[in-house]
Amino acid sequence: MTRQRENNKDERHRLRQDEIIRAARECFRREGFHAASMARLACAANLSVGQIYRYFPSKDAIIEEMVKRIVDGRVAAMRDRVDSDQIATTLAWRESLNPEDELLMLDVAAEAGRNPRVAAMLEAADARMFSQARHKIRASHPELGDEQVDACVEVLAVLFDGTALRRLTPQKASAVTLQHLYQNLISHLIKTEDK
Amino acid sequence: MTRQRENNKDERHRLRQDEIIRAARECFRREGFHAASMARLACAANLSVGQIYRYFPSKDAIIEEMVKRIVDGRVAAMRDRVDSDQIATTLAWRESLNPEDELLMLDVAAEAGRNPRVAAMLEAADARMFSQARHKIRASHPELGDEQVDACVEVLAVLFDGTALRRLTPQKASAVTLQHLYQNLISHLIKTEDK
Repeated sequence: MTRQRENNKDERHRLRQDEIIRAARECFRREGFHAASMARLACAANLSVGQIYRYFPSKDAIIEEMVKRIVDGRVAAMRDRVDSDQIATTLAWRESLNPEDELLMLDVAAEAGRNPRVAAMLEAADARMFSQARHKIRASHPELGDEQVDACVEVLAVLFDGTALRRLTPQKASAVTLQHLYQNLISHLIKTEDK
Repeated sequence: MTRQRENNKDERHRLRQDEIIRAARECFRREGFHAASMARLACAANLSVGQIYRYFPSKDAIIEEMVKRIVDGRVAAMRDRVDSDQIATTLAWRESLNPEDELLMLDVAAEAGRNPRVAAMLEAADARMFSQARHKIRASHPELGDEQVDACVEVLAVLFDGTALRRLTPQKASAVTLQHLYQNLISHLIKTEDK
């Protein structure tokens, strides 16, 4: 009975945290991190300022949990689907798993340039994604040395990040030509050792 | 004599504009676009609020002139030095012509996701840089078709933008291995037609 009540309490706490993160994402996108004060975030989540502090001690803690969830999603997506054809398609057609996540991560990056705490969050996020991608490439290409794997992951990360940034302006090259080019580049990237 | 006086006036106007842009760049980097009001920008440039409006009608006009100058610099740099070895070195060693310009352009990109006027500035900036790069590649590789040139420029733009974004987190791969890899990829990129 007590256990049941505890579980319900945990569940309510978790749901309320979800609501706060959802409201915060909207505020951050609309106004940027600076304008979104704890008072505004509380208001957007239909909470009092006193209440929101029961769930998160600061705005930075909300940003951190938001980034953690975005990275959880990306790590899971990497686990499920990474083959070079899919990568080429994503890059050439500029598909995005989640455009809102990308815009928020761009805000995080811009903020990281001026706020050391956000820079630390970005660093941790990047380390997790890099490690998952490294694991994935090692498993599918056991013939590659560690240095080679790291360089591959780095170039793929550059291609994904650059594409995310360029989604903000109109596509200027044919997606079909690009797809062909990316397919070539990626297969070249992974077996470049013997060149 | 009147001409002389006019020239002096133009020159003073130009110098004052330079000072405003310099002060605005610092404000934008420190506080983001939102916090930097015209009043704060005027103060940072040692002007009254009334005075700053004689030089720029709005904060957006200041951002626009700042972006224009950054792009002028990049277009000039592209004109001077683009060969594939230099590109590979820049990407692998993550050298930046101007790290502050890059951080400001990242702010512009993040802001473009929420402000249509800034999105239009980013679009114009990207169009100018793309056009200059296209011109450059066409001149050095007359054998490539238009579609091929556009795809090349797009991939190079992705590599530069992605590297600019990843400069914010620690380098995780060996720069020497990366340089080798980028050299291969770029030479492959430019002569991929016959693959």
